[in-house]
Amino acid sequence: MQQQLDFLAEIDRLKTVLRRNTLADRSRRENAAEHSWHVSLFALILAEHANARVDVNHVVKMLLVHDLVEIDAGDTFCYDPAARIGQGERERAAADRLFARLPADQAQVFRRLWEEFEAGATPEAKFAQAVDRLQAVLLNHRTRGGTWKEFQVPREAIERRIGPIKDGSATLWEVAETLLHEILGPGGGQA
Amino acid sequence: MQQQLDFLAEIDRLKTVLRRNTLADRSRRENAAEHSWHVSLFALILAEHANARVDVNHVVKMLLVHDLVEIDAGDTFCYDPAARIGQGERERAAADRLFARLPADQAQVFRRLWEEFEAGATPEAKFAQAVDRLQAVLLNHRTRGGTWKEFQVPREAIERRIGPIKDGSATLWEVAETLLHEILGPGGGQA
Repeated sequence: MQQQLDFLAEIDRLKTVLRRNTLADRSRRENAAEHSWHVSLFALILAEHANARVDVNHVVKMLLVHDLVEIDAGDTFCYDPAARIGQGERERAAADRLFARLPADQAQVFRRLWEEFEAGATPEAKFAQAVDRLQAVLLNHRTRGGTWKEFQVPREAIERRIGPIKDGSATLWEVAETLLHEILGPGGGQA
Repeated sequence: MQQQLDFLAEIDRLKTVLRRNTLADRSRRENAAEHSWHVSLFALILAEHANARVDVNHVVKMLLVHDLVEIDAGDTFCYDPAARIGQGERERAAADRLFARLPADQAQVFRRLWEEFEAGATPEAKFAQAVDRLQAVLLNHRTRGGTWKEFQVPREAIERRIGPIKDGSATLWEVAETLLHEILGPGGGQA
């Protein structure tokens, strides 16, 4: 029990890990904890659009834990190639330390949820990754370009980033493409 | 689909609803969205301590939606009797408006999850309420009294507030009592 309480107190720190994007009202940057809540609701509400029949409860579990490693490793901006160097190692080291704080059986369960999300191989992980990316698209859409414009992200980089949505849901990928076109126009070029 | 996306964009506002308590590091007040994420992890990690065998997936769903009505109704400080007048009506009006934005079948599912949590009658709702209250106790403990001391909450009010934890988990109620005593000492009187 003490291990569980200490873990639950420690993960409070995820609320202080800031992502690059802002809230829809642009009042401030979004943190990784509230992002995890938001994508969990994306999963619950959009599950019917998954390519495969998915266990939505399992998707939600993955999404609740998918960013915990950022407590140690920080948020890595997906459009910064330099920042992404070593990201995998940093996040694995974080997972090693963090999940080991739980009782052994739970440590293994949570570690596996995170690894499954990262691997993106199961239908549930594919759908979890799809809603994780769609959420960022929706916030960038509602902020009329958000991080895409702020950081002048090349359109091809955005297309590459949202491509995997297709693996989780062809329907949601079409939605993401539409939102992207509404902000950037139909053509090529820079955000 | 458009209804679902609009709903998902609108609930982003829960990230701007501030609770009275601060984060564990006291850097700022906690918002209701990140709180919802945190309590969902409390449920996943502490489910073994529930009095009854509970469907933890159902508990998590309730916790993910339990504060959505605060988008309209705001957070009501649980230790402010004046603020609590009319809280039920405000929150029901919020539920009427908010959940109706979803497609009809989902509107009903989400509305029922919220009603089940509020009623606190099922084993899942009892356990969801227990972890919701325990989370506030843990943050008040980690901040050496937090809102209890800041607002000079009478000890009996705290005891009354955490009492229902017992209905969800006798074990977690003992934990809450211990944390309370560690901050306020074993006796009566004010926080």
